[in-house]
Amino acid sequence: MPRQVTAFSNSIVKRLRSLREKKVRREEGMFLAEGLRILTEARDSGRLPEIVAFSAEGAKHPLAAEIIAATEAAGGEAIETTPDILSKMSGKDNPQMLLGAYRQPDTSLEHIDRAKSSIWIVAQSLRDPGNIGTILRTGDAVGAGGLILVDESADPFSVEAVRASMGAIFTQQIAAARWPQFLEWLRSGPGQLVGTSLQTDVDYRSPRYEDPTFILVGNEAQGLPEDYEKQCDLLVKIPMLGRADSLNAAVATGVMAYEVLRQRRPAP
Amino acid sequence: MPRQVTAFSNSIVKRLRSLREKKVRREEGMFLAEGLRILTEARDSGRLPEIVAFSAEGAKHPLAAEIIAATEAAGGEAIETTPDILSKMSGKDNPQMLLGAYRQPDTSLEHIDRAKSSIWIVAQSLRDPGNIGTILRTGDAVGAGGLILVDESADPFSVEAVRASMGAIFTQQIAAARWPQFLEWLRSGPGQLVGTSLQTDVDYRSPRYEDPTFILVGNEAQGLPEDYEKQCDLLVKIPMLGRADSLNAAVATGVMAYEVLRQRRPAP
Repeated sequence: MPRQVTAFSNSIVKRLRSLREKKVRREEGMFLAEGLRILTEARDSGRLPEIVAFSAEGAKHPLAAEIIAATEAAGGEAIETTPDILSKMSGKDNPQMLLGAYRQPDTSLEHIDRAKSSIWIVAQSLRDPGNIGTILRTGDAVGAGGLILVDESADPFSVEAVRASMGAIFTQQIAAARWPQFLEWLRSGPGQLVGTSLQTDVDYRSPRYEDPTFILVGNEAQGLPEDYEKQCDLLVKIPMLGRADSLNAAVATGVMAYEVLRQRRPAP
Repeated sequence: MPRQVTAFSNSIVKRLRSLREKKVRREEGMFLAEGLRILTEARDSGRLPEIVAFSAEGAKHPLAAEIIAATEAAGGEAIETTPDILSKMSGKDNPQMLLGAYRQPDTSLEHIDRAKSSIWIVAQSLRDPGNIGTILRTGDAVGAGGLILVDESADPFSVEAVRASMGAIFTQQIAAARWPQFLEWLRSGPGQLVGTSLQTDVDYRSPRYEDPTFILVGNEAQGLPEDYEKQCDLLVKIPMLGRADSLNAAVATGVMAYEVLRQRRPAP
């Protein structure tokens, strides 16, 4: 049976709320996801929350009721609470009526099975959690295997990233590594590392991309460091006809990923 | 000579700061842009601020000094102030050292000259100012003429949109209109209206796009209303291989815009 919680001072309210902080997420190895759509995505990918919190209103939806029941059946905790307290936990004025706390997956490179997909996305020092979530969402759309975050980056398990991923946080594999580790892992198997760069004349539509392709995107402000570019198997350029010299990182990733997909699956 | 302002209570500080509010922006017909890069973009596009505020540090950069001098020469106001006050004005902890208040351009459809480009972007009811800015930036990159915002939408002149545009707010034409007005204007001249939709089997890579192409993207959560889709000349679908049924609006726009560009300018 779900537990009723109506006090802001309740320890589980405080605990869920504290998962909005990166430090706590890291210590506890947990993260928050909000909303029926994302929690359903999780469930359909075989993931249940360890704690699910919901309003009476939220529990009325049959899919929500299923998730709540499944969470309890799996030994997790179900908390019925007020919209005000959900709002406090999620930090949003109009909170979703359903919120789950999930265990973070292992993000070591060793868990990545590169044979699972012909497209992988690698992002270096991304600063904006929204970009990370959007890239995960794009990865899901092109059938990528997952996202490898290289060097210091925003937290893919932050509320903003999870929200922007629209559930892809549960369907895409996620790894984090320093550049030398990543390179060593990459070179231990097949894979073509393709960087987007201004330092090349190769149009991104010209090469044949090898299987699997690792699309490498750089930091939002600086792009890829020069010595990282040198380690790529291929540098390509997306044409820029205007005054700006770069696209938003998530848009550039999308354009690249759909180009690789075009070669794997031509238009019918 | 620049005026020195060191008090938070100064009226010009309050006025600039108030431009972070949509209501004030609309009433005054002004907006804020921050940072040397974006202000330089503006200047290179022939636009100077009516008021430029800067720190002593910021004014040391030769490009900043030029913009400050040009603003004064054009009858605008130059305000030297402290980083703390700049921070207050921009709402950022680490403010840019240069901030300009610009007059908003006329956003009536009648100012759009469709012959100027073979690609135009039309966005319906976008809610996220970051998406609007990112789409402007993409528009600049593909050589689009500009962005037409249809129906109720986030403000393209908000600080977030201007920031995400990376200066494209000054290089792209911007219009705002209700759907019936937009359709009437569209049909008064040449142009193919292409909507991205789930309700079609036409792969976005298959059609020949006509000149000029108007790429229509829908609201982040709902996509395009059905009756809007019916008025399109063509509906196309971007393949979605994963679990999600849509891309982020700015990513979808980027993928579509580069597809249209591919037909206009094939890879060398």
